[in-house]
Amino acid sequence: MPRFSVTYSLAASTAKEAREKAFDICVEQTVEFPYDLIAERWIRERLVGRVETVSRLATGRYATEISYDDATAGCEATQFLNVLFGNTSIKPGIRIERISPSRGLFRTFSGPRFGVCGVRRLLGVQGRPLLCSALKPMGLSARALADLAYRFALGGIDLIKDDHGLANQYFAPFEERVRRCVEAVRRANRETGGRCRYVPNVTADGIQTLQRARTARRAGAGAVIISAALTGFAAMREVARDNRVGVPVFFHPAFAGTFTASPQSGISHPTLYGQMARLFGADASIFPSFGGRFSFTPGECRSVAEGCRMRMGPIKPCLPAPGGGIRFETVTEIVAFYGPDTLFLIGGGLFRYSRDITKACRDLRAAVQQAVARPPI
Amino acid sequence: MPRFSVTYSLAASTAKEAREKAFDICVEQTVEFPYDLIAERWIRERLVGRVETVSRLATGRYATEISYDDATAGCEATQFLNVLFGNTSIKPGIRIERISPSRGLFRTFSGPRFGVCGVRRLLGVQGRPLLCSALKPMGLSARALADLAYRFALGGIDLIKDDHGLANQYFAPFEERVRRCVEAVRRANRETGGRCRYVPNVTADGIQTLQRARTARRAGAGAVIISAALTGFAAMREVARDNRVGVPVFFHPAFAGTFTASPQSGISHPTLYGQMARLFGADASIFPSFGGRFSFTPGECRSVAEGCRMRMGPIKPCLPAPGGGIRFETVTEIVAFYGPDTLFLIGGGLFRYSRDITKACRDLRAAVQQAVARPPI
Repeated sequence: MPRFSVTYSLAASTAKEAREKAFDICVEQTVEFPYDLIAERWIRERLVGRVETVSRLATGRYATEISYDDATAGCEATQFLNVLFGNTSIKPGIRIERISPSRGLFRTFSGPRFGVCGVRRLLGVQGRPLLCSALKPMGLSARALADLAYRFALGGIDLIKDDHGLANQYFAPFEERVRRCVEAVRRANRETGGRCRYVPNVTADGIQTLQRARTARRAGAGAVIISAALTGFAAMREVARDNRVGVPVFFHPAFAGTFTASPQSGISHPTLYGQMARLFGADASIFPSFGGRFSFTPGECRSVAEGCRMRMGPIKPCLPAPGGGIRFETVTEIVAFYGPDTLFLIGGGLFRYSRDITKACRDLRAAVQQAVARPPI
Repeated sequence: MPRFSVTYSLAASTAKEAREKAFDICVEQTVEFPYDLIAERWIRERLVGRVETVSRLATGRYATEISYDDATAGCEATQFLNVLFGNTSIKPGIRIERISPSRGLFRTFSGPRFGVCGVRRLLGVQGRPLLCSALKPMGLSARALADLAYRFALGGIDLIKDDHGLANQYFAPFEERVRRCVEAVRRANRETGGRCRYVPNVTADGIQTLQRARTARRAGAGAVIISAALTGFAAMREVARDNRVGVPVFFHPAFAGTFTASPQSGISHPTLYGQMARLFGADASIFPSFGGRFSFTPGECRSVAEGCRMRMGPIKPCLPAPGGGIRFETVTEIVAFYGPDTLFLIGGGLFRYSRDITKACRDLRAAVQQAVARPPI
C-alpha cells in the first residue's frame, strides 16, 4: 500500500527528544494505543506512522517527515485530515509544514475542477490578473446588492463575490439574492459583451452547504465561495466534486486564522492556503495580503502563492487570491509581487476611491493592465 | 432585535488602542466595509457590532465585550460562528474568552438533547461518574473490535466508543463494525443485566456524517461521537437535532487543538470545550486531561468542566469527559478533582493494567465507586 507523508516542525532540545516526539506522533495519529501492547505485527509495522527523517531547523526546533499508510485515511477526506493532525493538534509546539500526498490519495483528492487555466477559460481572460470585488455591506437588500453587482460588472470586474458574511439573513435571503445578482450581472454582460461571473457565498449548516451550491448553480451563479474552516473542509470538496454544481469553488479563510497564528503550532501558510485548499477542491484561495489590516508578512504571502502553484501530482494549481490589503496606490507593486496568475480581491478600496463604483472598477482594471505591461521589478 | 455578545481578550498597549481594536472587530465581524462610507443609519447603528465594555486584564492585554444584533447570524449556526470569529481569527493577538448568547439565539441553538441528567437516565446510573472506554487499535477487524466491546461491557463499562481514528477503513468498515459491536454489547448486557451503550464514530465527509449517524441509530447504537472541528461544528448540531438519530452526541477534540494552543489567540478552553460544544449539541465533551500525554493544566481542565456546567439559558449542561491522562493510580485524585457528574475516558490505561480486560474494567469501576464514597480532598 502506498504511503503519504507529512512534514512537521516540533519543539525539542535534542535530536533524541525530537525523535521521541516524532515517534509519539506516529502512534498518536494512528493507533493511539501503547505500541508495545500491539499484538499484530502488520499494525505495528504498517499502520503505525513511520519516522522517515529528523533534522534540526534551529535551536530548539526540529523537522520530521512522517509517512502514513494510505489505508489509515480509508479513502476519506475527513479521516485524512484526522491522520494529518487530529490529536496532534492538541499537543504543544507541533506544526504541519508540508504535505506530500501519495499517488493513492489522488483518487480521494482530485483537487480543483478548473484550476488556473480552467477559470481563465471560463472568463475568457488571458495575460492579466483576474479581478474580484465583493458585495457589501451586510444589511443591504438583495435588490441593492444586485444593483451594486450590476455597477461592478459594468466596470469590467471579472468576478463579483458575496461578502463572506452574507448568508441567509432576512435582509437579503439567499435565493432572492442569487436570483437578482445573477440577473444583474447578465444584464451588465449583455451591455459590455463581458463574461463577468457572480460568486455567491454558500457556506451554511451541515448538508445545506451542498444544497445551496446546487441552488446557486441552477439559478445561474458562475462560481461559489465557501469558508471551509466553518463548514468543514470536506464540505468544500463535496461541492467541488458535485456534478450538479460544476462551477469554480473559492476558498475563504474565515475561522481558519488560528491555524497560522503561531509559527510553533497549527498549519503552515502554504499548506493551509495552498496545499489543503487545492486538495479539497478550491480553484481560488483567498487570503489576507500584506499591506492591509491583517498581519501576514510578504514572505508568508509569497509562500501561500507558492503553495497554490507548486507541483502536487495531478492536482491542478489554484489561483492565489490576496485580499484585504489592495489599494489603487499599491496596484503596480502588488501585481509585480504576485504575478499575473493571481486573482486580486478589492473591496473597501474601490469604495474609497470613488463614489462612482463603475468608474472605480474601470480605473482599477486599467491600472492592473498597465502594471502587467511593465516588466516586474 | 436582541443582541448576543462575545468577550474577546486582545493585545493593546493603552486603553485607547484597545478601544480602537475593539471597534475594528465590530466592523470586521459584520459589515467589513469602511464605517464612514455606510449610508444606511440602521446598518451603522444596529448591524455593526457594538463595544459594550473595555477593561484592562494585565500589562498589554485588555478584555472587551462586543454585542451583535441577532440578525447578523441569521438563525444559522455556521454564520453565528462566522460573526463570532470569522475574519478576526486571522488577526493577531485576539482570543474569544466567553460567549453570552441572547434569548433569540436559543431558537437556533437548542443545545444537548439529553445533557447530564438525560444521559444518566438512559444508562440508569446515578451518584457516580460514568465510565467510557475506546475500541482500538486501528487495524483490528470489526469482529475483533466487537469482541473487545463485549469484554469491556462484561466488566461494567457504561459506554464503549470507537477510537476517533476508526472511520470506514477496509479493515473494519463502518456498517459491519456498528452491527457487530451493537450485537456484542447487547449480548454482554443480557448476561450482566447492564445498560452499556456502544458509541460509534460518525465523523465523515460532508453529508455522510448525518447519514452515518442515522445508520448507526438504525443499527442500534446508543450514542455517536463526532470530531466537530473536522466535520464543521454545524454538522454536529445537525446530528444532535435530527430525530432520526435521537441518541446522545459526544464531541471529540481532534483537529480542534490549535484553537487553544496560545493564550493570545484562538478560543478559550471553557468556551470551546464547554460553551461551543453545548451550543452545537454535545451531551458530552471530550478533552485531554492534565496528568497525561497532553498539556492542559489542572486550571484549564477545571475551566473546561465549568464551561460544561455553567448556566447558559435553557441549554442543558453536558458531561465533561476528560481522557488521555487517567490511570488506576490516579483515579481517587481525578474523581475528586472533576466530581461525580463526569464521564471518564480510559483507554490505554486499562490495557496496561491487565491482559484480562474484563477484570481491568471491573477493578476500574470498583476504584471509581470507592473514590466517590470518600469525601473530596
